[in-house]
Amino acid sequence: MKTLIVYAHPEPRSLNGSLKDLAVATLEKAGHEVRVSDLYAMRWKAVVDAGDFGPSASSPLRVAADSGRAFDTGTLTPDVRAEQEKLLWAEMIIFQFPLWWYTMPAILKGWVDRVFTYHFAYGVGEHSDVKYGERFGEGTLAGRRALLSVTVGGPESHYAERGINGPIDDLLFPIHHGILYYPGIEVLPPFVLYGADRTTGEDFPDIAKAWEQRLLTLESTEPIAFRRQNSGDYEIPSLHLREGLEPAGRSGFRLHVRT
Amino acid sequence: MKTLIVYAHPEPRSLNGSLKDLAVATLEKAGHEVRVSDLYAMRWKAVVDAGDFGPSASSPLRVAADSGRAFDTGTLTPDVRAEQEKLLWAEMIIFQFPLWWYTMPAILKGWVDRVFTYHFAYGVGEHSDVKYGERFGEGTLAGRRALLSVTVGGPESHYAERGINGPIDDLLFPIHHGILYYPGIEVLPPFVLYGADRTTGEDFPDIAKAWEQRLLTLESTEPIAFRRQNSGDYEIPSLHLREGLEPAGRSGFRLHVRT
Repeated sequence: MKTLIVYAHPEPRSLNGSLKDLAVATLEKAGHEVRVSDLYAMRWKAVVDAGDFGPSASSPLRVAADSGRAFDTGTLTPDVRAEQEKLLWAEMIIFQFPLWWYTMPAILKGWVDRVFTYHFAYGVGEHSDVKYGERFGEGTLAGRRALLSVTVGGPESHYAERGINGPIDDLLFPIHHGILYYPGIEVLPPFVLYGADRTTGEDFPDIAKAWEQRLLTLESTEPIAFRRQNSGDYEIPSLHLREGLEPAGRSGFRLHVRT
Repeated sequence: MKTLIVYAHPEPRSLNGSLKDLAVATLEKAGHEVRVSDLYAMRWKAVVDAGDFGPSASSPLRVAADSGRAFDTGTLTPDVRAEQEKLLWAEMIIFQFPLWWYTMPAILKGWVDRVFTYHFAYGVGEHSDVKYGERFGEGTLAGRRALLSVTVGGPESHYAERGINGPIDDLLFPIHHGILYYPGIEVLPPFVLYGADRTTGEDFPDIAKAWEQRLLTLESTEPIAFRRQNSGDYEIPSLHLREGLEPAGRSGFRLHVRT
């Protein structure tokens, strides 16, 4: 299983750094090929600007169109092209990051903003009466799987169904569904460590055991059952879920998971 | 009304740039003081690292604790201190940005990650049997109001209640509630422009009219009725919403809005 780990934490000796190191060691020991994008170590440029699109940058700048032209002509910057190549190489993608303000750190969002260009991650496929492009289950990255491994400062109860922060599955939905499933990646249930601000070295053996167990069962884990866009579940072009498909009482993001 | 506009788009001649310019002109004409943080023009550093905390950076780096110590001792970097001062000065904060991958661009997330430090935006207030710190309705930025002005590439139907992307209110909840309401800011309903990738100069007069109308009625607009954390609605310390407070059939993020 060719695995890409995209890792975003400024401190190698952090809990996130340890989880990344453990993932590399565990997967390699099990015979898998592993590559790591250590965004802080790479000094990843987090901000989309005209410099990303070389001669394809128009004036005024148009981020979507220009990124698509740069992708088509192979003139994206080498750092972005390298990440796109890693994604095409990978069969499994693990994202290791701390939840900062209920979503990913800026450096990782900047990896998404710059690497997920038009014609690579969106603006793919034809539109017709039965198809609205290749997205949400289809697309350039179909056939791959991903997993978020996330550390969270607060306790689990705050992220429970009635918890004040909102349920963790809903907080992660825009990443799971909007970023990963959009270009075709199947998404496994996340590995979430709560109370990360209070963990100590003494807690690590139990954490490591749980993480190893997840890592060694990735291939047999069922992905989240998001609905495919072009499966007939949605009206085209409104992309409203057809009436009658939702389980009783389910609304919002949860409509888009099959039962 | 002292207004801070935090603006995140790489192209001054974009729709976002025009909306920012119109906001400045409209508010100043109406007699309000306006300051703008133009993150791209400022070449805002988007990435949290040890350099943010000066002599308060520990080894190994601990982002929360170190940022709190740097805040307490006045040794945060000048760019971050300037933004904190603008937030304390402001009565109204407008965020102008394009929705990229269902959330804010990395440069704006990096503004949040770096400016919303420990002891400034979180880690504020005491914990007791009836109070779990000052958050969600209380905190350093209480008494201020905010508004997201967001451009969205896709059509409105895709962001409707049954739309494939999820409802826009749920997509923005982690920003509205998790980032803004958390340190005490009241949040007004957002100004969302759909189909932004397809708008032309001909559409702008209607867009401008709608935006001016929102800008000139900010003071009389009711904020989203998020529940206050320490109001008695939540059990402490689990921060579960107490049983019986939810309207029938409401779940997830929507539990945290009063009816």
